[in-house]
Amino acid sequence: MRALVFTDRLRFDPAAAAPPCPPGEALLRVRMAGICRTDQEITRGYMGFRGIPGHEFVGTVEACPDHAWVGKRVTAEINAACGVCDLCRRGLGRHCPARTTLGILGRQGAFAEQCCMPVACLHEVPPDLTDEEAVFIEPVAAAHEILEQVAIPEGAACAVLGDGKLGILCAWTLSRVAGNVLLVGRHPAKLQKARWEGVATALEPPANDSMDLVVEATGTGTGLMQAIALTRPRGTLVLKSTVVSQGELNLSAAVVKELTIVGSRCGPFGRAIKAMRAYRFPVARLIDAVFPLEQGEEAFARAGARGALKILLRM
Amino acid sequence: MRALVFTDRLRFDPAAAAPPCPPGEALLRVRMAGICRTDQEITRGYMGFRGIPGHEFVGTVEACPDHAWVGKRVTAEINAACGVCDLCRRGLGRHCPARTTLGILGRQGAFAEQCCMPVACLHEVPPDLTDEEAVFIEPVAAAHEILEQVAIPEGAACAVLGDGKLGILCAWTLSRVAGNVLLVGRHPAKLQKARWEGVATALEPPANDSMDLVVEATGTGTGLMQAIALTRPRGTLVLKSTVVSQGELNLSAAVVKELTIVGSRCGPFGRAIKAMRAYRFPVARLIDAVFPLEQGEEAFARAGARGALKILLRM
Repeated sequence: MRALVFTDRLRFDPAAAAPPCPPGEALLRVRMAGICRTDQEITRGYMGFRGIPGHEFVGTVEACPDHAWVGKRVTAEINAACGVCDLCRRGLGRHCPARTTLGILGRQGAFAEQCCMPVACLHEVPPDLTDEEAVFIEPVAAAHEILEQVAIPEGAACAVLGDGKLGILCAWTLSRVAGNVLLVGRHPAKLQKARWEGVATALEPPANDSMDLVVEATGTGTGLMQAIALTRPRGTLVLKSTVVSQGELNLSAAVVKELTIVGSRCGPFGRAIKAMRAYRFPVARLIDAVFPLEQGEEAFARAGARGALKILLRM
Repeated sequence: MRALVFTDRLRFDPAAAAPPCPPGEALLRVRMAGICRTDQEITRGYMGFRGIPGHEFVGTVEACPDHAWVGKRVTAEINAACGVCDLCRRGLGRHCPARTTLGILGRQGAFAEQCCMPVACLHEVPPDLTDEEAVFIEPVAAAHEILEQVAIPEGAACAVLGDGKLGILCAWTLSRVAGNVLLVGRHPAKLQKARWEGVATALEPPANDSMDLVVEATGTGTGLMQAIALTRPRGTLVLKSTVVSQGELNLSAAVVKELTIVGSRCGPFGRAIKAMRAYRFPVARLIDAVFPLEQGEEAFARAGARGALKILLRM
């Protein structure tokens, strides 16, 4: 099958091996996939992953132990858990130590004609979401993970640092709960696209610690330091990037202010799909370009260019 | 009055100026005070403080607008808040931006014959606590701050990293709630003293991420990295030192595991006094020596020596 494969570098392979599809898993024909920052990190060595990356996707079920799924348009939660360990039994399958993660950890990903996922991970994509929109279910779910972890009262003062895709999706998501959100970024063109009901933007954070909740989505140490400075005493700081907080850091202000810092990763797909239908987040405006899979290398270069938002691959 | 004064270095001053005692404050005659790690940090420049340090103490009320206090043996919460700002009105006076802090920020401290604190900060020391024990009310309160911030079920797997005074007090405190606590430290002699009902000790942390709650009390970046490694997915990590987490750090595992990291500082004196009476924490065994105030410089040197626990000053 055709696929993008990362070994020492990312290449298009017209004849990659189709993924093994063990019992209990569905074989999916990928329709469209999105390039995420994690994919770019993977091509720089993140997680030591080798093989086919890609985890934001929409596809059609080609084969499935439960025949009712066959032919349906779906996306899938990206963590395949063992289902029997202590964490799985506590409902924390996304943290299962034996998990594989689509295109990230021990499992071939979605930048290919086909991929496999356990039936338990599948979510049907409703007809009122286009393929282009459905690719955003995974990052919208990651944004909604914040709502699973932190109780945010209406009217709470919220800020998001970082005008990348995930930062913008977090701002839109929080605005549905808090009412108003300040998104701080460095790219006027991205901030222009980010402005949507209740979301205001700024090029610099306010010079006070007035925010009840701050989401750090820049993935930089500088962003983390700004986020700590911006959060009020006893406020909450959500870390939404695994890249953040590496290097020379000083968290002492977070101790003095008694902040609660919450690491936040993958989120609930069902809740994300409901929210996308209810709120019609304008995700289409985040798409910069759609490339055919064959031009995957060019698509990655474009995704890594300064100012880029979402780049999609069409299989 | 006699006092220890920090300018460029710490010296004993036999004729220091008595502290100004504004309206609403009590004048206290200090009986005994403890040297804490924060005091040692102050003599290295922390907070830019100049003057008389010292914030763990027990004293007698000499003068007070409310005469009922005069003659009573007391200690005092160390943060003097404005009482009218938004944070004070929300019960977060310990975070009041206009606060002064005894011997740390804008207020002369307790390593002196006399100090002043607002009446609202005073707590009477019950007769069943000796002076030596009463000096521990402040750090025991800091340990109890964890219980104010985090709900800890009985049987929760808890670990404390760091066998300093505060680490040991945290382990004793947590053991009253969780039942069992593992204290990890580097000093066999300190660990020997730390072993008490429900508190086990080790020289190395376990090589797994099994802990529901980990308290980082080493004040080192290495300790923070170990604490992140030790905490289970979705577990809680309490930062109990403002010194911790400076330097080269990598918090990405905290994001992947979706940890909740809680900065934790000063705590509730009333709760600490009740706990000290109820549980009879064996704090006396943490006292290495009692020095007269005149030998304060020697006392600080001793407090800074490897393996030292609590050094007290007697006025």
